[in-house]
Amino acid sequence: MKALYYDGTLSIREVPEPSPAPGEALIRVLIAGICNTDLEIIRGYMGFQGILGHEFVGIVEKAANPYLLGKRVVGEINCPCGNCRFCRMEMPGHCPERSVLGISGRPGAFAEYLCLPEANLHLVPDSVSDDAASFTEPLAAAFRIIDQLSPSSEDQIIVLGDGKLAQLITQTMWLHSKHTVCLGKHDWKLSLLRDLGISTQHFGTYQGDMADVVIEATGRPEGLNHALRLIRPEGTIILKTTCHDNSSFDAARAVVNEIRIQGSRCGPFRPALEALALGTVEVHPLITEVFSLEEGLQAFERAARPETMKILLQL
Amino acid sequence: MKALYYDGTLSIREVPEPSPAPGEALIRVLIAGICNTDLEIIRGYMGFQGILGHEFVGIVEKAANPYLLGKRVVGEINCPCGNCRFCRMEMPGHCPERSVLGISGRPGAFAEYLCLPEANLHLVPDSVSDDAASFTEPLAAAFRIIDQLSPSSEDQIIVLGDGKLAQLITQTMWLHSKHTVCLGKHDWKLSLLRDLGISTQHFGTYQGDMADVVIEATGRPEGLNHALRLIRPEGTIILKTTCHDNSSFDAARAVVNEIRIQGSRCGPFRPALEALALGTVEVHPLITEVFSLEEGLQAFERAARPETMKILLQL
Repeated sequence: MKALYYDGTLSIREVPEPSPAPGEALIRVLIAGICNTDLEIIRGYMGFQGILGHEFVGIVEKAANPYLLGKRVVGEINCPCGNCRFCRMEMPGHCPERSVLGISGRPGAFAEYLCLPEANLHLVPDSVSDDAASFTEPLAAAFRIIDQLSPSSEDQIIVLGDGKLAQLITQTMWLHSKHTVCLGKHDWKLSLLRDLGISTQHFGTYQGDMADVVIEATGRPEGLNHALRLIRPEGTIILKTTCHDNSSFDAARAVVNEIRIQGSRCGPFRPALEALALGTVEVHPLITEVFSLEEGLQAFERAARPETMKILLQL
Repeated sequence: MKALYYDGTLSIREVPEPSPAPGEALIRVLIAGICNTDLEIIRGYMGFQGILGHEFVGIVEKAANPYLLGKRVVGEINCPCGNCRFCRMEMPGHCPERSVLGISGRPGAFAEYLCLPEANLHLVPDSVSDDAASFTEPLAAAFRIIDQLSPSSEDQIIVLGDGKLAQLITQTMWLHSKHTVCLGKHDWKLSLLRDLGISTQHFGTYQGDMADVVIEATGRPEGLNHALRLIRPEGTIILKTTCHDNSSFDAARAVVNEIRIQGSRCGPFRPALEALALGTVEVHPLITEVFSLEEGLQAFERAARPETMKILLQL
């Protein structure tokens, strides 16, 4: 089968079709999305080599569970060992032995087929298009914040950043509090949110109270210090940015103001699929362009450009 | 009256006796402790000029409330406005208009007399010596962690650092979980805790599981990165260090492991006084030397030396 492979350089190559291990399903990929993590990996993050890609929707072609066969699914990307301290604590996403689809120890979704444990799969409701379903994984990462925060409808929430993840987060927070504002630097990106009726402001000229919650999704190491200037005492900063570089930050300010800084990564698929099915989160405006797998190198080039939001690969 | 005054240089000088504003009491200081914050202030932290000192025990000499007159008291150091958003949210310690005894906008405790709002005062139980009572404020800062964490008796807790505050924190955490260990670099400091039956290890050779909670009280900007290597996924780091310098830290690790980093500052006086009265926290081994106010400059020199724990000033 064809796959987009990274081994120091990115290439389209012919690789053997994978065969599912016990408990795993074989999935024919329909659509896969390029994420900033993929761009970070080809800059050296995680030291991963192999087939990239972890955002996908596909059809189950082989599975032990007959109910799954032929079904359209999305899949959680962390594949835990099931036996360690963290698996027993019901923290499978933090299993130190885990493989992660297209990120660590497991071939990814930029290929005709992939394998994942059946336990990782979620059926996609018919009302969700293939394009939209491919956003389930990053949207779940936005819903992770809801698990960690339980925001109230009174909370003043600032989302810092206007990229793909920041947009999904802003829409998700908006569902919970109308006192949500996205601060970004690119008017055309902010306009995508304004078109949905969501408040935005330009980062440089922000006027407003210190927020109860600031979600740092700028993708830049200086984002945390900006967040510290926007958060009220005893407020919470959610950190989403995973940068290669160390962040330098004013720790004394975090201590004196007793700020909570909460790291946040992968999230629950079910509320993400529900939001897509109900249309309460709108992902279509985020799609900049759709490429074929054969055009994968072009697609990566395009994804890295500043005037791009989401790039999808159609298999 | 005599006072230890900082205005770019430290000196003993004669200043007018303060007169209490409405709602305030006049307190004759018995004992005051030198804190690392005092040492930071004379290095430029906070830009404060005036009478230093915020850890004290004293006798009320003037007060509107007759019940307070002649009583031995300790006092909370934050003096809030009572009207702002944060005061209304019951976060007086974060009132932006607050003055802070000997730290910001209010003369401190290294003097014969000080003034504080009557509402800030706590009576000292007879079973608590003057020496011990002067530790109430830093011990309250240790109890702040209990408010923020609600630790369980099963929690694996690491305290990073073996200085004055780290020692009070270790004793306080030990009350809540016997799976507490203090990691330090100075065997003689660690031995003060071992003498109380509390586990310690040398920082450089620590062997043990990743902890559920790491309390960073090293006083050094690199402490946070050390803490990040010792904490389990979804664990909590309590940040106590207020350094002048920015901290550089591996934010991606905090995100991937979904760490909570919680700034922590001043705390509740009541449980601190209770612990001193019951003897469940033992502060006498921490006292290195007692100086008179006239010997204040010497006392500061001594307090800054590495082989010193707590230095007290006797008025």
